[in-house]
Formats: sequence, C-alpha cells, structure tokens
Amino acid sequence: MSQEWLDALDPQSPFGLEALPFGVVLSEGRGPRLAVRLGEQALDLAAVSATTGSPHANLFDKGTLDPLLASGRAVWHEVREEIAEWLTSRRRAASTRPHLLPLAGRACAMPFSIADYVDFYSSEHHAANLGRLFRPGADPLPAAWKHLPIGYHGRAGTVVVSGTPVVRPSGVRLAGDPAEARVGPSEKLDFEAEVGFVVGVPSELGIPVPIDRFEEHVFGVLLVNDWSARDIQAFESVPLGPFLGKSFLTTISAWVLPLQALEAARLDQPPKEPAGSSHLAGHAGHAGHAGSGYAIELEVRLNGSVLSRPPFETMYWSAAEQLAHMTSNGASLRTGDLFASGTVSGPAHGQYGSLLELSWNGTQPVELEDGSTRRFLLDGDEVAMTATAPAPSGCRLGLGEVTGRVLPARPTRAAPA
Amino acid sequence: MSQEWLDALDPQSPFGLEALPFGVVLSEGRGPRLAVRLGEQALDLAAVSATTGSPHANLFDKGTLDPLLASGRAVWHEVREEIAEWLTSRRRAASTRPHLLPLAGRACAMPFSIADYVDFYSSEHHAANLGRLFRPGADPLPAAWKHLPIGYHGRAGTVVVSGTPVVRPSGVRLAGDPAEARVGPSEKLDFEAEVGFVVGVPSELGIPVPIDRFEEHVFGVLLVNDWSARDIQAFESVPLGPFLGKSFLTTISAWVLPLQALEAARLDQPPKEPAGSSHLAGHAGHAGHAGSGYAIELEVRLNGSVLSRPPFETMYWSAAEQLAHMTSNGASLRTGDLFASGTVSGPAHGQYGSLLELSWNGTQPVELEDGSTRRFLLDGDEVAMTATAPAPSGCRLGLGEVTGRVLPARPTRAAPA
Repeated sequence: MSQEWLDALDPQSPFGLEALPFGVVLSEGRGPRLAVRLGEQALDLAAVSATTGSPHANLFDKGTLDPLLASGRAVWHEVREEIAEWLTSRRRAASTRPHLLPLAGRACAMPFSIADYVDFYSSEHHAANLGRLFRPGADPLPAAWKHLPIGYHGRAGTVVVSGTPVVRPSGVRLAGDPAEARVGPSEKLDFEAEVGFVVGVPSELGIPVPIDRFEEHVFGVLLVNDWSARDIQAFESVPLGPFLGKSFLTTISAWVLPLQALEAARLDQPPKEPAGSSHLAGHAGHAGHAGSGYAIELEVRLNGSVLSRPPFETMYWSAAEQLAHMTSNGASLRTGDLFASGTVSGPAHGQYGSLLELSWNGTQPVELEDGSTRRFLLDGDEVAMTATAPAPSGCRLGLGEVTGRVLPARPTRAAPA
Repeated sequence: MSQEWLDALDPQSPFGLEALPFGVVLSEGRGPRLAVRLGEQALDLAAVSATTGSPHANLFDKGTLDPLLASGRAVWHEVREEIAEWLTSRRRAASTRPHLLPLAGRACAMPFSIADYVDFYSSEHHAANLGRLFRPGADPLPAAWKHLPIGYHGRAGTVVVSGTPVVRPSGVRLAGDPAEARVGPSEKLDFEAEVGFVVGVPSELGIPVPIDRFEEHVFGVLLVNDWSARDIQAFESVPLGPFLGKSFLTTISAWVLPLQALEAARLDQPPKEPAGSSHLAGHAGHAGHAGSGYAIELEVRLNGSVLSRPPFETMYWSAAEQLAHMTSNGASLRTGDLFASGTVSGPAHGQYGSLLELSWNGTQPVELEDGSTRRFLLDGDEVAMTATAPAPSGCRLGLGEVTGRVLPARPTRAAPA
C-alpha cells in the first residue's frame, strides 16, 4: 500500500482517504458523473470501473448515488473498500490517476434524488432559545418536546445542491409596529445550520424501524442549510406548522459522507431527563441509544466572517431516535429519504445555528469582520457552512460545504415567459 | 358517431363518456396498464394504440400516468379527444372493444408517482369546527386563516391507492383523564374527506405561478382520504404541525379525472370577507377567482352507512388560490405534485367530512344503519368516499371512489424479518 502518487493531496485536507464522500460532478460532454472527493479533486467512479472493471460497475454509471444508496450496507462497505484500493494500490495507480478531475470551477449536481424530506427540531438549546424569544415567561420547551423528537415534512422538490442562488422569497408576513399582515419580500431571511441523514434501504409500510436498525437503513450524512423566512413563517404556522417560510429552498452539501467514515466520531448523547419515550427503545432496550451521537463540529461563515461553531454532539435527540420515531407509526422509508436534525445550537452564543438566535430576533445585531452588522440576511450575503469530525487516525475529516448567496426578491407578479 | 356497441355501459353510470378518468390497472402477465375507466370496465390504452396506432403511443405504454401528466394541456386535450373517438367511432369499435378489461376483481396501482404532497385546510366550516372544539371561547379561526390558504407538507411516500389496508398506527398520544402522554395504538383514528389536485406541468424555481395559470399546470382531480390519528396529532403538533398523526397513510382514488371533464361543474366560490391577499391576485386581478370553485358533491360511507355528504363548493379557498399561494414564495412545482383541499365540511352536521366533527370529538357518537355507534374508527371498519359533479349533458359524472379498511395495530416492537 502506498499513496505517494497522490501528490496533489494536501495531507491536512479534511477530504483525505478517511473521508471519501460521494457526490455527482458535472463533466463537459459526458453529463453527471458519480465521484468520490479526494482533496480538491473528484474521482470519476464509472471511468475507473470502465477501464479496470468492477463488480459494482452498474452502481457507478448512472450519474447519481441512487443505485448505490439502495444496494444496502454490505455493498456500501465493499464499495468503500474497493475505492480505497483504487486509490492506494501502486498496481492500480496508472489506471486510477487519469480519472481524478479537478473540482476548482466545476459544478456539482444533486448527489441523489430526494424522496421525502423531514426536518426535526432536536437541539434543546435551539428549541429553548425560540421559546424564550416567542413565549417569554412560559416553559421554553413545547409540552411534547422531551417525549419525542418533534419534526415535520418539508418540500422535497426545492432541496437544491450547494451553490444554488437563494432568491429572497416574498409572501404574507408580519411586519411593522404593531405587526400586521403585509405582502412583500421577507425582511427576516435566515439560515439554519443542520446535519442531514440520507436513507438508503427502504422499509415496509406498517412496520416500524427499531432504533438498533439505524445503520441498516441510513447510508450517510451531509450538511443542510434550511433557509427560513422568519416573518412569513411567524404568520402562517398556526396550527399546521411552517410552510412557505421554509419551502422556497433548502440547500444540501454536494458530498455525502458514508456513516462508516464517522465510526471514530460516535459518542453518547447528552443524558435524557426524563428518559425518552418507550416507543423509541431498541431491541436491546435503551442500550440502543449509546454511541448514537456524533462529534461533528459545524462552522457557519457569513461573507467569510465566522458567525458560529455549532456542536452537533449537544443534540438531545439522535438521528437513530429520529428514524425510529419517524417510522413508529408504520410510515415506510424510501431510498433517498432525507431527514435533517433541525438547527444545531450549542449552549453558548457563539454556538447558535441561526441568525434568529445570534441576533436575538434582530434586537442584538451581529458584527462581521468588515464592521458591518446583520440582524437578518441582506441581498448579496453569502452563507457557507462546513463541518469536521474525528477520523480513526486522530486527524479530522470533513463534511462537504454548503453555500448559498442571497439574490434580491423578484417582482411578485412575475410570470413565466 | 355511435356508441351502441358500448352495450356493457349502464347509461346511469357516473363513468360514462363525459368522465373518462385515467388510472392504472393490473393485468395478469402484462404488468400495470394505463387505462381510462368506462363504467365498470377499463380501456387498456397501450393495447389499443398498439393495434391501431396513435401519435401518443409513447404516453400510453409506460404503465403510469407520469408521461401524460408532463405532456401539457394541449396534449391532455388531444388525448382525451382521441380516446373518445376510439370509443364512439363505429369504424374503431372492432379494434377498441377487445381491450376493455372488466374492473370487477381487478386491482389498481398508483396512477402516477407522487412528487410532493401538500395538504391544505381550506374549508371554513371545518377550520371553525376545530377551533370551537379545541379553543372554545376564542376566535374559532386561526389569525392567518382568512389571509392565506393555510397548508403543510405531508409524506409523499405513504400516499397509497384506494383499497390499501389501513393499519392502526401507534405512537405517543394524549390519553386518559386527565390526558397525559402514553404510548400505544391510536384510540382516535379518523378519516378526512378531501379533493386532491394533480400537477402535470412543472414550474421554474423562483417564479410564482399566478392564479390564472392554474389550468396550464394542473392535470386533474381525485379523491383523498387523509387518515388521521387525532390523539397522536394532538400531542405532537406544537409548534411544527401534524407529523406522525397523518404520515402513516393517505389514500387516493385510483382514477384521476381530467380538469377538462369538470368544465360544467365550475362555479364561483363563496365571497371572501375580507378580500383575499394581494399575493393571490391573477394577472387579470381578482377576476381570476371567478369560476374557480367546483360543484363536486362528496359522499362518505362507513360500513355502507352514509355518514356525510360534504359539498366541495363551500370551500373558502380554491385550488387555483392554493396553487398560487404554494408557489408565491418561489417554490417550484414538479410533475406529480399532489395538493389536497383539506377536509371538506359544509355548514350542516350531515356535511362534515371527519368523524372528529361528526362525533364532536367523541362526545356525540354517530349511529350506523346496523344500530352500532362510532366515536372514532374501530378495527374492521371500512370507509368509502365517492363524489359526483355536473356533466355538460346535465347528467352527473363521477370521481373514482377511495376506500380503506382498518386493520388492528401491530405489536409496537415488531421488526422486519
């Protein structure tokens, strides 16, 4: 084993051999190509398998992660081993190296087809912050919050890949003082830093997926920016929850990190008080909860200024609990289901995952490095989220970044040509 | 023109030549077949076009409505004319007749692939009934209710075709007196009678679809039973809305009626007081609202007893307004998007579209013809919904029925084999 030929790979890169996330890159004249990321390059999997052969060639040549997602855990692990072999074997180097494509200036496509998109609300710090903001004096957490992971379905059709522009949405929003319903562009456009989980293996309608089957069904992890128009959301959400305040756009990272890469990042979740509901217990009882947290450290930058470093390990409800809950009523899973954690906020101000919290609903503007301040996002602002987690070597590995720049609202009466 | 050869067609059938809804029937050995329904038979479109030729053969042979949905309004109308010609031309009879398949004992498949599923809440009577039940003494309508059509995203992956069994869901629900959170099978399983609209032509991300473009995008109409576990829903819904109380199953009719068949059913909606929000105005201003209601009469039966006859014409928000609202923030449409009206309830008790309203949250049990009573659904209960609307001839045409039988809850710790 040798990787000396991988001379282009920065040894400090969070996208070294321990990460190997999957994505789809666009290649001139050859359409979308399934790839793994290595540093600032992408290895074209179909091109390698076409020259050297692979038992998994039919999973690589569709220009999407979909067939690999559906193939199940044993194949996920085999494919990861096979790709590592392509990258590290001296014998393989000559046939692998020509298929490393530079990422600079190259667009990525959606890595997989989104089936259903569910968004949870599983950070206690985030939920309590929102309670303090909007229900001062009352219990900051909703009554059900510690009984189950609260969540809702979002719009799968407007989940887009990192880099897609974010047109400021218009709608009926609460504005003015006293606040009343007015139509116009959102004045409280916000981001939410989240971690998303991608379902590979479907489940049967009517049969809950127990907590200890999490790794049989979930392929991997990505970053999510759940863009939110707080003023639209505030007006529309009673009693059926967020709708247009969220559905205009949700951005995911272009790279999906297999769960297997995160083994060294696993840790116990914060203790539950009171204990979680019995409908989430695994076959091994609550032991199923141990090690279901992940030590993922997020970073949120606005126009280059670091705004926040949300720690995913502080989440109260784990992804395994979310999956068990989501199916506890018999709802089935499909390949490509995406479920996100909800805004990741730690206990400290510099760990909040939204501007709503960082600016305390606009009352405490946040200062950027250029001296300007923000209550909410302005046109032209670019939000970038990245994350790293411990790798088996003791180094850190990366989750792909999720970025988006805000464009001005379009005229509200515009129509297709 | 002659239809004398259509001897099997009951002249009183609501599925005569003025209806011609599309669906997918299962055929032994030949897989799913796209068909139109004619009385109690289904015409296999690919089989006819294979023997006689058709400019639309490539829309008929995929065993799903998906390609026809995407083909646009001009083609929708051409195809409807072509099929009517197949059925009514004496010259065509010999080649058409052999491809009429009896529906008795034949299963239907999902007629199309659901992209996103949105459920609205657009009956003022229903929303006000729920307000009176759960917020007595307060304004029965939520603050935003008359400003915009309130809605939320449901789970597309658990939308199933009529006839699919309904396994009673389990979950964390409010039960006992005083009510507290307990895990177990729902004790308040309910139906909701709704009308759903199917999007054919997609729209561009960031560009709202104005109200007067409704018929460019929407292919047709079907019936929806939005099964609801009221006790699960009641506990989980603050602040993000319904989730597991709805996501276990939503049933649609097997037959999709093209909008074109409903021209004679169009009528003005109830007047708006105050006027609807300006973000819903069409390019012709509020004139776009005229004629956007539909005189569809629903009927709900439980084990054969008629429980209710909800009148769709009483809906406050129209489907055109719902579509305009749903895209007013720039959210795009995809082929196969399904949006439902919300429970259709008229002003009178016999017009309520849910057991929650009919039994007034279980306090006034409903009596069936066999003398038994219901507060909510029991295991073994079968709910059947049908609907008719005025046809151009002055007769009535039908929307396909949506049925489902309740099966007992499964053990909560069951796991896949």
